[in-house]
Amino acid sequence: MPVTPPFITFEGPEGAGKSTQLTRLAVRLGKVGVPHVVTREPGGTPLGTRVREVLLDPALSIDPLPEFLLYSASRAQLVANVIRPALARGEMVVCDRYADSSLAYQGFGRGLDGTFLASLTREVTGGLVPDLTVLLDLDPAVGLSRAASRGVPDRLERADLDFHARVRGGFLTLATRDPGRFLVLDATRPVDALADDIWRAVEARL
Amino acid sequence: MPVTPPFITFEGPEGAGKSTQLTRLAVRLGKVGVPHVVTREPGGTPLGTRVREVLLDPALSIDPLPEFLLYSASRAQLVANVIRPALARGEMVVCDRYADSSLAYQGFGRGLDGTFLASLTREVTGGLVPDLTVLLDLDPAVGLSRAASRGVPDRLERADLDFHARVRGGFLTLATRDPGRFLVLDATRPVDALADDIWRAVEARL
Repeated sequence: MPVTPPFITFEGPEGAGKSTQLTRLAVRLGKVGVPHVVTREPGGTPLGTRVREVLLDPALSIDPLPEFLLYSASRAQLVANVIRPALARGEMVVCDRYADSSLAYQGFGRGLDGTFLASLTREVTGGLVPDLTVLLDLDPAVGLSRAASRGVPDRLERADLDFHARVRGGFLTLATRDPGRFLVLDATRPVDALADDIWRAVEARL
Repeated sequence: MPVTPPFITFEGPEGAGKSTQLTRLAVRLGKVGVPHVVTREPGGTPLGTRVREVLLDPALSIDPLPEFLLYSASRAQLVANVIRPALARGEMVVCDRYADSSLAYQGFGRGLDGTFLASLTREVTGGLVPDLTVLLDLDPAVGLSRAASRGVPDRLERADLDFHARVRGGFLTLATRDPGRFLVLDATRPVDALADDIWRAVEARL
């Protein structure tokens, strides 16, 4: 029986450098000849791309529960049509965001019940959990510092900061619950140093 | 305490005359001065309209589970933003399709587990169940008769017929489980006679 290759996810806020590190990892995997698929959430399938457009449309008002259901729809299609087939072919999968983002953003951030989210996520993914999750941790105040430097944060910026602080705390809580799966890294460290740490963690799982 | 007005849904296959009967009912409600909101699934909100476009796009391949999650996302937004607020204002709500469609199409039709569908639907609707569901029952062979008259049904038409037969059986099973809520009508009867039967059932709930 061939060993199933690892399924690796990147998590963290916008601006933490997920895409940069994901690209670095893909380049290294290519250099050492590890077959791999790079994908992302929401998206990664024709359906997911359409759902992504809906989720990211700033003109739309979306309540937390339907927001979670849309992410879950994209995830269900991605797991069934991209991630599981790739792993079955013996190819490693690297995914930009996955279920932990829903638990952090819609659960800890928007206040949906974590037990419900985890239960539906098990149905949606068929219980597929990453072998390694790289969490690029960043103080949300750093990301919003440019806005703050323009003066006192307005109501929306303030709400954003509280929301993103809950999301950050959510990611760190999830990491604490599953330390064997999570690699938590300080996203303010140099890009090369982070890439080296990530590569060591990936190599250990090859 | 004011009495909450009734929440009425129309179910059945395409071509059974749901829209015709829904319009007839709305006209009668207007004539007798009953405040009411007419809406539909998927759709009924800006988010629902976008989700509807995705669901009905023939170019997209959508697995049964994400299909159900997309309907559920539209439903969650509709219940929270249209149906519950209307009922709270004392307005009757008439909806073209609702949760029974998911149970019939994605459950009985596509084979998703009915217990899972019912459980998630309770979360999505907050337990909001219609006071009256008008089921316009129609033999799927009637709807597909024109295709069949062109010759032997091809593989896809045959699959459609089997699928729609399961959906029809699903609707009838749901009606049997909840006879106090369902009004099952033979959709091949004359439009006026159906409209009269529906009006009597609605009047009894005003």
